[in-house]
Amino acid sequence: MYQDFKLAGDRPVMIQVKDYVKRLIMKGALQADQKLPSTREMSDLLQVSRNTVIAAYEGLADDGFTYAVPGKGSYVADMAGQSAADNGESDASVFFQIDWKAKMNEYAVSAVELDLMKQGIRAPKGTISFTSIAPDEQLFDLGDVKRAFMDRMAIEGQMLLNYGYAKGYKPLIDYLMRYMENKGVDISGKDMLITNGFTEGFDIVLSALRPSERRGAAICENPTHHTAIKMMKLHGFEITGIPMERDGIDVERLEAALQSSNCDLAYLTPSYHNPTGIVMSPAKRSAVMKLMARYRIPVIEDGFNEELRYSGSHVAPLIATAGQGNGVIYIGSFSKVLFPGLRVGWVLGDRSLIDALESIKRARTIHTSTIDQSILYQYLLNGNFDKCVKKARAEYKRKYELTKASCITHLPEAQVSGDGGLHLFLAFPSDVNTRRLLEACAVKGVIFTPGDKFFIQEGEGTNTLRLGFSRVTDDNIERGIRIIGEQVRSYRLLAP
Amino acid sequence: MYQDFKLAGDRPVMIQVKDYVKRLIMKGALQADQKLPSTREMSDLLQVSRNTVIAAYEGLADDGFTYAVPGKGSYVADMAGQSAADNGESDASVFFQIDWKAKMNEYAVSAVELDLMKQGIRAPKGTISFTSIAPDEQLFDLGDVKRAFMDRMAIEGQMLLNYGYAKGYKPLIDYLMRYMENKGVDISGKDMLITNGFTEGFDIVLSALRPSERRGAAICENPTHHTAIKMMKLHGFEITGIPMERDGIDVERLEAALQSSNCDLAYLTPSYHNPTGIVMSPAKRSAVMKLMARYRIPVIEDGFNEELRYSGSHVAPLIATAGQGNGVIYIGSFSKVLFPGLRVGWVLGDRSLIDALESIKRARTIHTSTIDQSILYQYLLNGNFDKCVKKARAEYKRKYELTKASCITHLPEAQVSGDGGLHLFLAFPSDVNTRRLLEACAVKGVIFTPGDKFFIQEGEGTNTLRLGFSRVTDDNIERGIRIIGEQVRSYRLLAP
Repeated sequence: MYQDFKLAGDRPVMIQVKDYVKRLIMKGALQADQKLPSTREMSDLLQVSRNTVIAAYEGLADDGFTYAVPGKGSYVADMAGQSAADNGESDASVFFQIDWKAKMNEYAVSAVELDLMKQGIRAPKGTISFTSIAPDEQLFDLGDVKRAFMDRMAIEGQMLLNYGYAKGYKPLIDYLMRYMENKGVDISGKDMLITNGFTEGFDIVLSALRPSERRGAAICENPTHHTAIKMMKLHGFEITGIPMERDGIDVERLEAALQSSNCDLAYLTPSYHNPTGIVMSPAKRSAVMKLMARYRIPVIEDGFNEELRYSGSHVAPLIATAGQGNGVIYIGSFSKVLFPGLRVGWVLGDRSLIDALESIKRARTIHTSTIDQSILYQYLLNGNFDKCVKKARAEYKRKYELTKASCITHLPEAQVSGDGGLHLFLAFPSDVNTRRLLEACAVKGVIFTPGDKFFIQEGEGTNTLRLGFSRVTDDNIERGIRIIGEQVRSYRLLAP
Repeated sequence: MYQDFKLAGDRPVMIQVKDYVKRLIMKGALQADQKLPSTREMSDLLQVSRNTVIAAYEGLADDGFTYAVPGKGSYVADMAGQSAADNGESDASVFFQIDWKAKMNEYAVSAVELDLMKQGIRAPKGTISFTSIAPDEQLFDLGDVKRAFMDRMAIEGQMLLNYGYAKGYKPLIDYLMRYMENKGVDISGKDMLITNGFTEGFDIVLSALRPSERRGAAICENPTHHTAIKMMKLHGFEITGIPMERDGIDVERLEAALQSSNCDLAYLTPSYHNPTGIVMSPAKRSAVMKLMARYRIPVIEDGFNEELRYSGSHVAPLIATAGQGNGVIYIGSFSKVLFPGLRVGWVLGDRSLIDALESIKRARTIHTSTIDQSILYQYLLNGNFDKCVKKARAEYKRKYELTKASCITHLPEAQVSGDGGLHLFLAFPSDVNTRRLLEACAVKGVIFTPGDKFFIQEGEGTNTLRLGFSRVTDDNIERGIRIIGEQVRSYRLLAP
């Protein structure tokens, strides 16, 4: 015994000794009331200092694994369950197996089936990947983030580490309310809930608004964000997708859909729409909101990447267009503009709605990480946001233009859309199946996101793809798109 | 115009100027194509440096609120929606109101009704409050937390700020798997999901296991954690509560309940049970697990405060007792032992189950804050946990003993339970109604948590209360309990 002890470099030695003895006890190699070697002996056996052993023995007694007999030494405590493997017969009766797959409900099964991350292509190292629309982490200014953390910890560290509020960290809420007001939002009668990113905000809103006794009905742009499609499906919504035009959703088709069926809510992404990158024109925003008002449809506005405009005038979000109306719920996040790792988003909407969402939030996760919220707040307060957005815009604008130019050069077959943001969307002639194209490109070391997964119905958008350029180098953008072009052409030559 | 500009101390002046002009534009005070004052004029008007104005004007143009005409100056951009209030008639048609209360489903309504935070007593400053079981933030060692953050940021800051994984931060998962193994858990065939604290873990598990087509049936200790009751109700479970004995759940009653009805799952808190503070004896743990095995009931084990034992041997959790069996789902968190503000919990269970829970987690919040996870990991790795638990145990043990002694002295009428943790539970003779007692005590400046909210059925536990002592000073513990005692006696004198 004691010969298999090996020091690992990364943890305090005392803890390693303590855990090692704990494990011997739990395995049953050391039995109840057995005496441990003296601290001096153990120090020899494990080749660690005697003080370390003394501290480890103290820790074992503190945790109830051993007890000390004054003047005699340390003994193993009598514990239930420590040697489950040894107790044999009597414990076998508790080793029961459950078939968890059979226990899982429809929701869990659908969550797995709709989990695209579990169906992604695994690309070997060196592959040029256009699949990500996460920001380029090389742009992150770590110094500013560290400073924000240290600043805030110095001001109220103790408070930040204790429980916070379900609604969110008050200084951040106040800051973001002002931020939204500066976008033209009339904030009277409105309130805000801080969530664990856009996703939790959308999930909580859907949880509150899905009809209790029947399937819900939702309207959205087609294509749209695949996570949003997944979430609406998981909440049991029937989804009606409305086609996109160059300047946003097709308003006539939207009106027809509203006329012909009852709709519980609309989910819209007016700026840098995912995946098409289209910005809804101001005229269309107004037309859409008039329709929503006429049919009294609650609108969930996805503020996705609103900050990443590279040209043109500021366009007010739908919630600003709605003025004093309370029909729009705006869900925002700086994930793509600042740091996805800070899981902070916000839901801005009517006060009575936010009050209920707050209770749901409390019932689900108590509150969003206060550390994340306070880092974000202090980062904004320190004036880093403008600096960071300026830097991000300059860098991504360059990449956006490069990607667009490369597409025009190498993919003349494709219709390219995207007015900003971190991706472009391509539509090929209908004989190009982008899933098969992806297989061919993957062999040549290039991958992208096939567009069909952004469409509501199966079989739609099979000729489309999304190119995320934020994390691809300039060289690889050009090279990757050239390779896609080559594959498109050899694919079309071979196609029947 | 420009006379209402006032500098606030806390934000960069450039941003304040920019936001000020933005607001004038959004309010319609500055109209499309109107020329802004020259930078020199504006510098005079606002009493800020000209360089600040130049930077602010640049920022306004970057954000699309203005455009620059070379050699002439800055002009307001033509934007839709910036002056909703001014546009009058045409926009009134989009100012629609939705009655959100009417739109909310049963789940949202119940979440509000069951939200105890919205029904709490608001106590004036200076009140002695025994309502909290959050840790005493004076014990937090901020230096260690800051060090953990800076250490981890130095190693992989860029990665931490980008997207993480739904399952959790890998180094933390590895660490916690080893941690659970040291508690005697057989981890073969098991896996772990990191969640936003215990609450999210429990919510995700219930989401996956609630039956699709009928109400679920759950068994738990009675009383039990009120948040757990709320969550099981919100997920539509019928709850059967099993009374507690001195050494944990009443096994005979448990067996009778299992015999007489179908049960989908059991929720159990074997250590420092909330609210009674009782630790289930090893013999009872084994008996309970045998029953669970016989009836094949999935067990959700709440590892609540398992670390806060003040005396006696280590007791293995149920999931350790279950050996190679996969029937137990263990949900852990260090919230009460370390920092509630770090929203990190873990679900340990069968691999196939965790795989599905991972997809649900991804569909709901993408992933838990990586900053929180990495701070926790580095804090553990740096060996701070043992130090912190030692300090917490010493401090809370003292308070625990003081509280217990005060109860014995001042509340001889009450039966006191609690073997550790951060609270005691008191049962008075049945003529004492603790809600009315609370009203009387509140007037005298003392509040506590009435016990009825921990019971499954209305009308149970009306003679009980929970005393959380972690955040009360020694003096106030003694004084507060004395006051409760006085009120109990005057209450009983007056009672019919």
